Amino acid sequence: MATLEDLGVSAFINILSSFVFLLLFAVLRIQPVNDRVYFPKLYIARKRRAHDHSSRSAVTRFVNLNPCTYIAFLSWVPGALRMSETELVAHAGLDSAVYLRIYTLGLKIFLPIATLALLVLVPVNVYGGTLRGLGKDIAFSDIDKLSISNVSPGSNRFFFHLLMAYVFTLWVCFMLYKEYSNVAFMRLHFLANQRRCADQFTVIVRNIPRVSSHSTSETVDEFFRRNHPDHYLGQQPVYNANRYAKLVKQKERLQNWLDYYELKFERHPGKRPTGRTGCFGFCGSEVDQIEYYRARISEIERRMASERQKVLNDPKAIMPVSFVTFDSRWGAAVCAQTQQSKNPTQWLTDWAPEPRDVYWQNLAIPFFSLSIRRFLISIAVFALVFFYMIPIAFVQSLANLEGLEKVAPFLKPVIETNVVKSFLQGFLPGLALKIFLYILPTVLLIMSKVEGYVSLSSLERRTASKYYYFMLVNVFLGSVIAGTAFEQLYAFLHQPPSQIPKTIGVAIPMKATFFMTFIMVDGWAGIANEILRVKPLVIYHLKNMFIVKTERDRERAMDPGSIGLGENLPSLQLYFLLGLVYAVVTPLLLPFIIIFFAFAFLVYRHQIINVYNQEYESAAAFWPQVHSRIIASMLISHVLLFGLMSTKKAAYSTPLLIFLPLLTIWFHKYCKSRFEPAFRKYPLEEAMEKDNMEHASEPNLNLKSFLATAYLHPVFRLFEEAAKEEAAKEEETVEVRIDKAQRQQNRRQEEIQVSSSLQHQEETHFRSTHETYYHHEASHVSRSTQYHEGIHVRSDTDSPSPPHFVYHYDIES
Amino acid sequence: MATLEDLGVSAFINILSSFVFLLLFAVLRIQPVNDRVYFPKLYIARKRRAHDHSSRSAVTRFVNLNPCTYIAFLSWVPGALRMSETELVAHAGLDSAVYLRIYTLGLKIFLPIATLALLVLVPVNVYGGTLRGLGKDIAFSDIDKLSISNVSPGSNRFFFHLLMAYVFTLWVCFMLYKEYSNVAFMRLHFLANQRRCADQFTVIVRNIPRVSSHSTSETVDEFFRRNHPDHYLGQQPVYNANRYAKLVKQKERLQNWLDYYELKFERHPGKRPTGRTGCFGFCGSEVDQIEYYRARISEIERRMASERQKVLNDPKAIMPVSFVTFDSRWGAAVCAQTQQSKNPTQWLTDWAPEPRDVYWQNLAIPFFSLSIRRFLISIAVFALVFFYMIPIAFVQSLANLEGLEKVAPFLKPVIETNVVKSFLQGFLPGLALKIFLYILPTVLLIMSKVEGYVSLSSLERRTASKYYYFMLVNVFLGSVIAGTAFEQLYAFLHQPPSQIPKTIGVAIPMKATFFMTFIMVDGWAGIANEILRVKPLVIYHLKNMFIVKTERDRERAMDPGSIGLGENLPSLQLYFLLGLVYAVVTPLLLPFIIIFFAFAFLVYRHQIINVYNQEYESAAAFWPQVHSRIIASMLISHVLLFGLMSTKKAAYSTPLLIFLPLLTIWFHKYCKSRFEPAFRKYPLEEAMEKDNMEHASEPNLNLKSFLATAYLHPVFRLFEEAAKEEAAKEEETVEVRIDKAQRQQNRRQEEIQVSSSLQHQEETHFRSTHETYYHHEASHVSRSTQYHEGIHVRSDTDSPSPPHFVYHYDIES
Repeated sequence: MATLEDLGVSAFINILSSFVFLLLFAVLRIQPVNDRVYFPKLYIARKRRAHDHSSRSAVTRFVNLNPCTYIAFLSWVPGALRMSETELVAHAGLDSAVYLRIYTLGLKIFLPIATLALLVLVPVNVYGGTLRGLGKDIAFSDIDKLSISNVSPGSNRFFFHLLMAYVFTLWVCFMLYKEYSNVAFMRLHFLANQRRCADQFTVIVRNIPRVSSHSTSETVDEFFRRNHPDHYLGQQPVYNANRYAKLVKQKERLQNWLDYYELKFERHPGKRPTGRTGCFGFCGSEVDQIEYYRARISEIERRMASERQKVLNDPKAIMPVSFVTFDSRWGAAVCAQTQQSKNPTQWLTDWAPEPRDVYWQNLAIPFFSLSIRRFLISIAVFALVFFYMIPIAFVQSLANLEGLEKVAPFLKPVIETNVVKSFLQGFLPGLALKIFLYILPTVLLIMSKVEGYVSLSSLERRTASKYYYFMLVNVFLGSVIAGTAFEQLYAFLHQPPSQIPKTIGVAIPMKATFFMTFIMVDGWAGIANEILRVKPLVIYHLKNMFIVKTERDRERAMDPGSIGLGENLPSLQLYFLLGLVYAVVTPLLLPFIIIFFAFAFLVYRHQIINVYNQEYESAAAFWPQVHSRIIASMLISHVLLFGLMSTKKAAYSTPLLIFLPLLTIWFHKYCKSRFEPAFRKYPLEEAMEKDNMEHASEPNLNLKSFLATAYLHPVFRLFEEAAKEEAAKEEETVEVRIDKAQRQQNRRQEEIQVSSSLQHQEETHFRSTHETYYHHEASHVSRSTQYHEGIHVRSDTDSPSPPHFVYHYDIES
Repeated sequence: MATLEDLGVSAFINILSSFVFLLLFAVLRIQPVNDRVYFPKLYIARKRRAHDHSSRSAVTRFVNLNPCTYIAFLSWVPGALRMSETELVAHAGLDSAVYLRIYTLGLKIFLPIATLALLVLVPVNVYGGTLRGLGKDIAFSDIDKLSISNVSPGSNRFFFHLLMAYVFTLWVCFMLYKEYSNVAFMRLHFLANQRRCADQFTVIVRNIPRVSSHSTSETVDEFFRRNHPDHYLGQQPVYNANRYAKLVKQKERLQNWLDYYELKFERHPGKRPTGRTGCFGFCGSEVDQIEYYRARISEIERRMASERQKVLNDPKAIMPVSFVTFDSRWGAAVCAQTQQSKNPTQWLTDWAPEPRDVYWQNLAIPFFSLSIRRFLISIAVFALVFFYMIPIAFVQSLANLEGLEKVAPFLKPVIETNVVKSFLQGFLPGLALKIFLYILPTVLLIMSKVEGYVSLSSLERRTASKYYYFMLVNVFLGSVIAGTAFEQLYAFLHQPPSQIPKTIGVAIPMKATFFMTFIMVDGWAGIANEILRVKPLVIYHLKNMFIVKTERDRERAMDPGSIGLGENLPSLQLYFLLGLVYAVVTPLLLPFIIIFFAFAFLVYRHQIINVYNQEYESAAAFWPQVHSRIIASMLISHVLLFGLMSTKKAAYSTPLLIFLPLLTIWFHKYCKSRFEPAFRKYPLEEAMEKDNMEHASEPNLNLKSFLATAYLHPVFRLFEEAAKEEAAKEEETVEVRIDKAQRQQNRRQEEIQVSSSLQHQEETHFRSTHETYYHHEASHVSRSTQYHEGIHVRSDTDSPSPPHFVYHYDIES
């Protein structure tokens, strides 16, 4: 066990590294060349523009030479705090604003608890007296003197701990209740004040039965005309364009390479770039790269054209899913919340996610398959959480030298070299684990995708919940009782249930210093690392160097990212767990958590204002999960405290603890029924109110045209563009007057346009939103604006040379 | 362990006693005097009438003297089987018909399983060989030779058991799926073919918020006019008349005594009955009983009048609950399934139970209190299941002689008498347990009432589920591992979880003979006892002797009862559990269960046709519970088999068992999502279809008047009657021409009428139904018909002497 001095050293190191990160950040963020890495959200929100090139020297365009700006290295903090919550909601959406509330909730919960615990429990522990009496010959740490370990068994002082456990639980419940009610109110308020959006009028219908004589669209039309005659407006069928989307992605990748080589050729016009085609450029025949990629792109285009025809003409390409729109919010709310068909596995209706949030690939999964998938994945998650060490141990055993030599005997001479050998022996086993942990969130996301959820937001929430289980078992329990999850599972099955809380409870105070260090490394230094954005910084500059040709390419190269709820929620929940478990046991841990929450709050507020651009808006749909995880943490802390105190022979006080978990469970049930419907359903009262207001203010609204293309499958927009492009090409061939040079130029620009139109695939959610969705909200006029305008212009002007226009637009922007 | 001979003796005894019961039944049922005990349902359904008195001698009116009818003592069996299922649904409702399907499901499941198990597993076990080799010196039973215990540890023969476990599970799943789908279809079909009922158009709204300036009715009106403008029709407020109902009950009890004494006086006109007023007639002053009860009744009537005024005039007597009606099934379905208010704890809507099914007392419980109640009751049920032995042991300790002497020293001389002493010592301790087990269902029902469910059907289902837990822990586990539930709980907490299935699994085959005896005693003889109806028989004859004055009183004295799902479902589920657990372990138990199912099927079919009269119709709403309990039984059987086989060192076969519970869980989830909505929600497609059909067939239907009084609180009908009665009385006093004798007669008849109108309170659900509910369905023209007609006539004729009419009517019927 570490002493206070050890801990001090660790704290010093971590504070120092955090300081260095912050310093680096302070220097890097004020360099104009990094502007798009550290302020992408402002670019997207049009609050910041590329600096005027003419007025600056070549150097100042890239490096900040003003010494004053270097002095205040924490100057970003006031900026992060200045924006009010209302502005924040308008600027970054409700999801982000509510995400920040998790940190403030942490502060609100732990600041009073820490104060009380330090004032009451620490003195009780210090004068508790077991360890003090034993003299210096038994190894104990100074921190243990301040923890519950210091109280002698059977002491009546445990009543203090008991009392504090009750006070803390009540306080946490109180704060949770207040916060849940706040967030629910914010959500309803946000939804109520939202402008007219397509998703308010739309219901997603899944598992539409196939009727042999009808097409799916006809079936849907007939069904809803019959069963919702007063409110049914129309429908938007969903096409299975997954294969087409794959081709688009492939083309995009090739286009990137083509751009790269063309840029290379431009810079060194004397030498045409060549390379080999096979095996990562190692073998195959040597070809001219530009010609080669052009040929491959045109081949893919041919395949895309035939695939397009297939999707459009094959009735089987229409999936048994549809977005059904209603003429009022009331009608949509009714349809989303009721059962439609006698067979409850058909005509499943639910609120449509907002267009940006739809995960198109999963729309076609039938009900039966869905139930199997969810079941299999839940088994897989269980296996992953408890047995993930098995494949890793296997890889590690392969990765030792004998194993490697057996598998690949030809490597023997290389491996036997001393330097390589020691490197491999030291590095390989750890590498397998590191790689696994790095790809874990992605694996969990894929698992969630297999489960068949149809919106990105629910995918992210499911990922978060899976990750939480992993962290709980492998990080928390794994650290406390120091064994792999598999060993824990074995122990749990072969120990009496009453023994388990004792085993863990006894280990809890001993691990306090470990978790303090963990908080400093993972929390403090991790957050400082977060603000530095090393990975996006590197990638941006690489892209800038190799692919970026225009200002618009640069726009695309900048990657604002999003908060990453899938990873961040579980780790936040882990901090809540640590705080609640140690609040009574070792109160000294709480200040570390408070510092983490405060620091992370500042950093994330800065990032949300300046960097992140959320892909979708779920209106804080993740809050019920946050709430119930904190409740679960409380329950765990009660069980462990019970285990710990029962080993301390505190016979009078321990049984009184039994009411705590009961109280907590009841509180959870109450909150669930009190608040959760606000996150799952849309009250008719609300819907009716908004409908009436709208009718009063805009009596002649043409809702049908407003909703017509809101949920158009991304591929359809590509189709439209492709069709226009072909028309344009044909007209082009007629224009014989255009001289060759002009044509050449045209062709290149046309390619640029094609490439950009391909990129749309990625951002289509944005675009599809755009024409219908947040079209009034300035705060949401985001990165897709320029595409939108481009498209709009193009579709308006049926001129023979649209590329010109696009090019112009690029230069201008 | 019992040998085959022991079992044979036990079987002989039980078969003999069943035979005796059946014989008794055969004799008793053909006596005309018992007609109303054994065929009440036929009387209610007007398929049987009181025998014509004039055409019979005094003796034949009571005793059957026709010797031929005594011969065929099983003559009721063909009658029970003759009715088809469709007729049964029409005769007794869907609940009863589906209840019988549980027995046929048992037969369908266990007949093939038993055949297969006896053909395959018994030979495998017999030649399995452990016990055979050990010779006669080790005590083992013949039955164990046929069970899995006979197979030597580590034998490969366990693969047969494994295979059979899979086959059985698949078969059970298949049958369950088929049955669930059948029942769901029957339910939908039943609902679809139902005549127009009030509950199809009605939604119960709870937790209506109080608005200070408005009355509750106005608030409801305004809310639904705003949010369901197209479909809202009207509402029926609910009055808090619980106190009034209590007074009514009290008056009814007094009236019974008055009737008794008046009858006594009539038979012995010379001697007016007298008695003492206090302490069960032991002390107090001596009074004329008839005068005394008349005085008390008139006092209660005064209190009722004032209470009535209070309810009618006090706005606080209107509860924040309302029955809201819509102009179409579609509108009601929409309202029932959607969330109405922004605050999810207000304006809670749900399908209204049918009027007979409403449990009025619970309507006023607010949401917050409800969440606390449910939580506390779930703790109480847990305590009851695991710790019920503690209070009983306490009572038992009190009930021993020393304890009794201490508590009540004055009883010492009595107790010390030898006869009394031995009686008390032998009898008292057992008595406490017997009493507890006898009142247990009532206690559980009261607990369910405290939980706040608003329909009788849900109360019964909740009671059944609580009783199931009790039986599972105390009957099944208690018998297998032979300890109180409290000891089990202790063992479960202090044993490793992997040990528990082993402990129980090993004990399972040893308890086979015990359960066989249990099935014979509880199942065979119990069912034979059921058909005899001893308790209703005795009570009917007692009532007949002391209270019954008119044919109509006799009608009331007959108590058809209902199936009693609260007790019968759990015990049926216990038989499924036994069958599934022993199917692989000791297949010899299965024939016992099959006989039980077959016999019980016959008996209950007979009872449902001739005796039981269901209080309400829930359209088989209990089926999901039956289904999931059988699934749970399967899971238990898998776990126990796993435990048993792991002690048998069957290392190859045991791990393969792990897939069985997983398969079963998935099957359950699938069935739940596939079928359960049919039992919880009402599909809009269906609602729309019926609405359209109705519009087409009855375009001018006045739904408003049809629904106006459907959900009138019972007390309101009493009010109306009371008001009329008062008016009648006033008019009576004006009629001076009526001579004294006539007046006297009038008064008595009036009293009869009052008493009968009081009895209405009990049957009001029936009545309230009557005017609006099943008014076309002959099958439901049940016991309340005469009251209904009586009321109707009375309210039509505003003549000064309504009692006359009533009296006439009584004589006629």
